[in-house]
Amino acid sequence: MTLLDVIEKKKRKEILTKEDITFWIEGMCKGEFPDYQISALLMAIVLNGMTDEETFALTDAMLNSGDSIDLSAIDGIKVDKHSTGGVGDKVTLILAPLLASFGLKVAKMSGRGLGHTGGTIDKLESIPGYRVELSREEFIQQVNEVGVAVISQSGNLVPADKKLYALRDVTGTVDSIPLIASSIMSKKLASGADFLFMDVKVGNGALMKTIEDARELARLMIEIGKHYGKTTICILTNMSEPLGNAVGNALEVEEAIHTLKGMGPEDVMELIIKIAGLVVSRTENISLEEAEQQCFKKFNTGAAYQKFEDMVTAQGGDLTKLEISKRIFSVRTPKAGYIAAIDTLGIGEIARKIGAGRFTKEDKIRYQVGMVLSHKVGDFVKANDELLKVYLDDLDVRVNDILDCFTIQDNPVEAQPLIYEILE
Amino acid sequence: MTLLDVIEKKKRKEILTKEDITFWIEGMCKGEFPDYQISALLMAIVLNGMTDEETFALTDAMLNSGDSIDLSAIDGIKVDKHSTGGVGDKVTLILAPLLASFGLKVAKMSGRGLGHTGGTIDKLESIPGYRVELSREEFIQQVNEVGVAVISQSGNLVPADKKLYALRDVTGTVDSIPLIASSIMSKKLASGADFLFMDVKVGNGALMKTIEDARELARLMIEIGKHYGKTTICILTNMSEPLGNAVGNALEVEEAIHTLKGMGPEDVMELIIKIAGLVVSRTENISLEEAEQQCFKKFNTGAAYQKFEDMVTAQGGDLTKLEISKRIFSVRTPKAGYIAAIDTLGIGEIARKIGAGRFTKEDKIRYQVGMVLSHKVGDFVKANDELLKVYLDDLDVRVNDILDCFTIQDNPVEAQPLIYEILE
Repeated sequence: MTLLDVIEKKKRKEILTKEDITFWIEGMCKGEFPDYQISALLMAIVLNGMTDEETFALTDAMLNSGDSIDLSAIDGIKVDKHSTGGVGDKVTLILAPLLASFGLKVAKMSGRGLGHTGGTIDKLESIPGYRVELSREEFIQQVNEVGVAVISQSGNLVPADKKLYALRDVTGTVDSIPLIASSIMSKKLASGADFLFMDVKVGNGALMKTIEDARELARLMIEIGKHYGKTTICILTNMSEPLGNAVGNALEVEEAIHTLKGMGPEDVMELIIKIAGLVVSRTENISLEEAEQQCFKKFNTGAAYQKFEDMVTAQGGDLTKLEISKRIFSVRTPKAGYIAAIDTLGIGEIARKIGAGRFTKEDKIRYQVGMVLSHKVGDFVKANDELLKVYLDDLDVRVNDILDCFTIQDNPVEAQPLIYEILE
Repeated sequence: MTLLDVIEKKKRKEILTKEDITFWIEGMCKGEFPDYQISALLMAIVLNGMTDEETFALTDAMLNSGDSIDLSAIDGIKVDKHSTGGVGDKVTLILAPLLASFGLKVAKMSGRGLGHTGGTIDKLESIPGYRVELSREEFIQQVNEVGVAVISQSGNLVPADKKLYALRDVTGTVDSIPLIASSIMSKKLASGADFLFMDVKVGNGALMKTIEDARELARLMIEIGKHYGKTTICILTNMSEPLGNAVGNALEVEEAIHTLKGMGPEDVMELIIKIAGLVVSRTENISLEEAEQQCFKKFNTGAAYQKFEDMVTAQGGDLTKLEISKRIFSVRTPKAGYIAAIDTLGIGEIARKIGAGRFTKEDKIRYQVGMVLSHKVGDFVKANDELLKVYLDDLDVRVNDILDCFTIQDNPVEAQPLIYEILE
């Protein structure tokens, strides 16, 4: 067998065997195949698809390409959560300590920002002193003692995915549901949790642009989970506007803290309560309503925030030193009307341009920059009302580029649901 | 614009503009794009296709990537001929001198063997002393004086095609009709002839496996020809058995010589007369019947063979030194019956294995080896009858591999047409 045989097969829309897929991934990890063959295969997969069986085989081969984390030294139910990525998505920062306040164990490995989407690890690094790299022993010890730790993905966790992702990113082969599902699930499975919760973002700021695609991705991830005997719940949520108001690393940490104290933006609160409620009702075996009530209580008693502070302190961070830029300007609407749409990808790209994200791996993030929305989709604004505040460093931004992200119309706008559906 | 934008566009099945395609080919020739991006784009083209307009733009960009040959210093009508490749295809060796014997000018650049298919240049090199590389001045002078010269493709003729072809060959992206058509036509257009004749091979030994694909390739090449104001005629011919009896370089030269003397195998004679008849009736403005009669005359008077000898001599070759291997063995059929099929690709691969072709660019061809068929599709053979003779050097061959190429059945076989159709 050669990789060319595998490419030819997929090109002819034939089904790859487990042997074909293992041959590809193992050989790739050993550096036996040139990138130009792998990218041709990836494009054939994007255009001709993969069956569930092929996707299981790919997930398996990727999972076997590196280390898996053994969480058996941690007592209790280990929960993990993943978001397919969006703008202003600070859910992990809030959800992880909230779940830990219920006694659940959250041993979480997160990623950095990618393209226009932010990354939890970058957000945590905006807290001076916060160590995103812990030894495996420190990681497990912290989860056992504090209940929660959020660190960056370990070096040899699913190296095949690292290699594949880097290539997909530069060859137009990102948007394949089987490739996305196996990439996410191989990492989640390698991370060793018992219970997986997937937030599948849908909309103009997300990888999945339609409910149908998001539903298919969710279905596939749930099937892969079942294949490995892991409970996997997916929630499909709206990413046609930034989540919450803050976009940018330290700004999002600040908003997360407000939310942990029960004072977050409405949509962030709603989403967190829904996800945590689902997890808690399932793990505690109580009704969803009761679980949601208990979540509110964790906010109101300060228990959730305390867990966050404990985690940050345990990882060396100092919240008193969190810095937000002082160079602030307001972007105001020249015309009155209802906000019909926000170009979320556009907002994410602007945040990236002012330094909240990276264009090359070497770029240094400016943690204190970002934007805070004053209004969201559906709101009525008068002429000259503030649409958002920009927090700048030395990188500039064109006001018109920001205004272009807002569609304002005369007629009222139908409210968008935040949560579309829950699948398992 | 980046190449990634072009990839994404083709992936979404959108039509690439002339600008997109020029950007790709020009950047590729300057070495600006990594191979893994080009191969992803090629796979997207293979699977999502290209319109005629896109194919014209690709042909144009490739044509502009290097030199074009200026044949204006040659008087008379310059004809060129191309075959899409097969096994035992020695047509150029016969057709080029035959056309020259009519006063037509054949300034032909040919290729080497590729995969299981032979190449005219390798065949000519089996004639000791034959120089396949002439300076441009020598080339034009010879065509003016002798009427015909067959040389290898010049160094900087369509470099974009060289680059693309090398990548297509190793990424499973060969079988795209627009890519094939633009590759062939850019080289033919760069070679400067007025009149193009295309032999599109169809069958188990050819790139085009079905009449439908061959017809589409022919249609597209004719359209490209029209786009450049060149008369292009395509003939669709059978490659479900080797053409003629000889397969292998010196053996094919020998068979070409027999044919030039009017004593070639029936199918080779038929094909040559048909092609030459079409070209001559067109260029001389006479009926096809009359043109075919004149072709026979050129064989019988020795005029065609004389042109061949003149060409070989002018290029330094010595036909008296042509060598055929003396290590000959006969492969005999163990069972009687009608030959229903010959695995032409299989025969081509065996020829390659015994040294008539190459596996790597560095392999040296053994010119004196090959096979000569004793029977063709439709023939009845008794048990122990000879199917073919193998002419070996020091590389061995398994008899069963050869026998496996023949399907022998009890019932008579319907005769296969040699020529399917003519398009222009």
